[in-house]
Amino acid sequence: MSSEKPHPLEEVFQPKSIAIVGASTSEPAIGWVARLLNFGYSGHLYPVNPRAAEINGLKAYPTVRDIPGPVDYAIFNIPARLAPQIMEDCVAKGVKVVHIYTAGFSEMGKEEGKKLEVQVAAIAKDGGVRVIGPNCMGLYYPAAGLTFNPTFSKEPGTVSFVSQTGAGAVRFVYLVNDRGIHFSKVISYGNAIDLDAPDFLEYLASDVETEIIACYIEGVRDGRRFLEAIKKCLMTKPVIVLKAGLTESGAGAAVSHTASLAGSASVWDTFFKQTGAIPANTLEEIADVILALLRMPCPKGRRVGIVGRGGGIGVIATDTCERAGLKVPPFLPETRRQLEEIVPEAGASVRNPVESARGISDAADFYDKGLKTVDADPQIDFILTHLAVDIYGGRQPDLQQQVVKAAEVLASTAQTLTKPIAAVLYAGEHLETIAAVLEARERLLKAGIPVYPTIEAAAKAISKLIEYHESAKRSKPAA
Amino acid sequence: MSSEKPHPLEEVFQPKSIAIVGASTSEPAIGWVARLLNFGYSGHLYPVNPRAAEINGLKAYPTVRDIPGPVDYAIFNIPARLAPQIMEDCVAKGVKVVHIYTAGFSEMGKEEGKKLEVQVAAIAKDGGVRVIGPNCMGLYYPAAGLTFNPTFSKEPGTVSFVSQTGAGAVRFVYLVNDRGIHFSKVISYGNAIDLDAPDFLEYLASDVETEIIACYIEGVRDGRRFLEAIKKCLMTKPVIVLKAGLTESGAGAAVSHTASLAGSASVWDTFFKQTGAIPANTLEEIADVILALLRMPCPKGRRVGIVGRGGGIGVIATDTCERAGLKVPPFLPETRRQLEEIVPEAGASVRNPVESARGISDAADFYDKGLKTVDADPQIDFILTHLAVDIYGGRQPDLQQQVVKAAEVLASTAQTLTKPIAAVLYAGEHLETIAAVLEARERLLKAGIPVYPTIEAAAKAISKLIEYHESAKRSKPAA
Repeated sequence: MSSEKPHPLEEVFQPKSIAIVGASTSEPAIGWVARLLNFGYSGHLYPVNPRAAEINGLKAYPTVRDIPGPVDYAIFNIPARLAPQIMEDCVAKGVKVVHIYTAGFSEMGKEEGKKLEVQVAAIAKDGGVRVIGPNCMGLYYPAAGLTFNPTFSKEPGTVSFVSQTGAGAVRFVYLVNDRGIHFSKVISYGNAIDLDAPDFLEYLASDVETEIIACYIEGVRDGRRFLEAIKKCLMTKPVIVLKAGLTESGAGAAVSHTASLAGSASVWDTFFKQTGAIPANTLEEIADVILALLRMPCPKGRRVGIVGRGGGIGVIATDTCERAGLKVPPFLPETRRQLEEIVPEAGASVRNPVESARGISDAADFYDKGLKTVDADPQIDFILTHLAVDIYGGRQPDLQQQVVKAAEVLASTAQTLTKPIAAVLYAGEHLETIAAVLEARERLLKAGIPVYPTIEAAAKAISKLIEYHESAKRSKPAA
Repeated sequence: MSSEKPHPLEEVFQPKSIAIVGASTSEPAIGWVARLLNFGYSGHLYPVNPRAAEINGLKAYPTVRDIPGPVDYAIFNIPARLAPQIMEDCVAKGVKVVHIYTAGFSEMGKEEGKKLEVQVAAIAKDGGVRVIGPNCMGLYYPAAGLTFNPTFSKEPGTVSFVSQTGAGAVRFVYLVNDRGIHFSKVISYGNAIDLDAPDFLEYLASDVETEIIACYIEGVRDGRRFLEAIKKCLMTKPVIVLKAGLTESGAGAAVSHTASLAGSASVWDTFFKQTGAIPANTLEEIADVILALLRMPCPKGRRVGIVGRGGGIGVIATDTCERAGLKVPPFLPETRRQLEEIVPEAGASVRNPVESARGISDAADFYDKGLKTVDADPQIDFILTHLAVDIYGGRQPDLQQQVVKAAEVLASTAQTLTKPIAAVLYAGEHLETIAAVLEARERLLKAGIPVYPTIEAAAKAISKLIEYHESAKRSKPAA
């Protein structure tokens, strides 16, 4: 997918030098300069602040114009009203890309802010400066040492996120990292007076470092271009889109947040049907789908075998799976016969779902034979196993050890199965059960098994995984 | 609601003496005898086991017939095949109620189990013994010292739960206790060869200790009776029903679990519309609705004011609320003007949702004035406030202290508001942020503020709260 000529946005992601305009002297430990230094950015860093001689051990300059070397990229951490003047400085200096972190422009819903935004955009455009923002967090790109948050993981990954929300992007990075998955590039682009979602999407479509694209948008200026960019991405990789502002109230909220016109729900409905982009309603849903896309080979169909403790819990799980678009067919008689010999208790269901065992240690005992038996049944395409760790709080002195042991048995059994498997661990709301689940989950994730907090989250994510692959197959029948 | 004559089921809940048939010698610390002793049951306890002289310090008897005093209630913890013989013993002894804990009857889906069940039921009926079960956990009734789980809370409350699932009932008790709410009575009744959901519901309808009824059912034998029982309950208290097996796959799973015929989805749809019972799809949903019913005065309408950090997070919250049947109207211009003076940052939305602040400590600062301003706006009926604690992991050394302080400010501000309020605390998946949220949640729950883990959970629960009150008003126009 790489072309001879570098992509015009390459300069956005590979700055050799960065100026921090409005570098903070009041909070030097967590300001932008410290953030980039600590995160491992290895290019030239130039703090700009007329009232400081040095920030974080680096010489500070009164203006961008005073910086001796070339400046590829500038971050504006200054009051909105100063933006035009500083943009002029950047034009004069030959800065290639400016990230306007500052808010206080059109999203305020007032003439003053709108005017200011138009003015800044015009200066940048005339001067040949590309702009990210305003009113946004900018870039998180661990491989290049770029971040907008000092606590993000430094480990590079293959997921990229194009986001019209800043705080939401922070939440999202955590949600994904917590699932053991890392990022290629996260772009929070805010009001988008220049670079907009389609620009970033087009770049990511041919970015070899990006395998999965997620996107949070409130509105798009050029619907046609957005559609084409998404289609281009989908030719080679999955794209998940959270279109915010799809409800009447939500559309109003979007105007207030990023001055976006949300567009009608029916238009977006057609968009999803036409493109095969994966729709999501919450940031958690996006993270759940990414986990399925990365850790689960696509099942051959929608028929799930459910394995876990509790008859009623199994019936609820079954309804939940079917509501999410999956099927829970009865196992073959031969499978049921075999399961009856394995299930430890009289009265345990073996029809599908199968009730694995009463205790955590029994669960581990059941996994080996039980999962292999279910796996062998031609009636099912994948396995969903659940463990309600939350009901053992205060009862089992060695709970964490037992749960981790169960996870280890599950992980090693999973390696022998022919069909995809996902796990649900109910953590409850006690530090004891939660700690046990977090450790067990880590083991399972490391073994390549996707883990979800609820059956609902798992069923929705896997259903979307299957839908994506079905849609990709339809659009590329020759492949 | 109390009548002169005691309700015929009073003897189920007030046993003066209990025989444990099949009292465990192999696990005396967690067996039924130890469980009841430790839980504070103050009546006579008789272990029955032909191979033991004493269990947990109590004299053991070879059979029920050998017990010297009268026996009100017997728990069968024995292999299914022994049930007929021991039921004969109980008839001979004049036992009033038998709880058959044992599984291995009709739910096995085999002739043998079905026959055994019919046989036991006939012996009990002829002998005038009422039966709970088989294949169930029986009773949790803290006020009477009855429990099926040694770790349940001993604190009595006002919620009762009629459950066709055992392990599910255990999960449910934890889910509700974790929300700071306690139980009057939990009844896990399994295959229901005698006492069935309608019996328990009729009892709870006039039970002065029960203010809210929840019900998990897979199927009912006598639809008419079930309908009438639910209607009777709804005349004085809310009833939440999780009807499992509503999907095609789920119906099959229900047959396998408790030999229940699930009934068609459309019949149950009519049931909910006709009765005004509150529908739920998962145990978590029931617990969430109970929290709203107990801790939130019903809002006058569906218009919510959303307050919290993050513009995009607010737009997602808005869509989520509207999808759950709520409305997020713009505030009056005067409210917005006032909010603009309070929000700490340029560019923060004030239209509704309102962006409270960037940090945890700013959030606390905003609560007092901000919430009062939103509360005063006639455009809204209640407030939903959210705090994404999950995005502060590893960044704030005194996180727990800050989050708890924010919760305390929120709690004290809430006392001054004229409209209902609920809170969402995003806990994330790090022990640090989770611990902070658990403590903050406890403070808020103690202050009478319902706390939810997601906007979705809160919006669904509050929407159901409003729906219930609307339906109750329609059916009692004179009240």
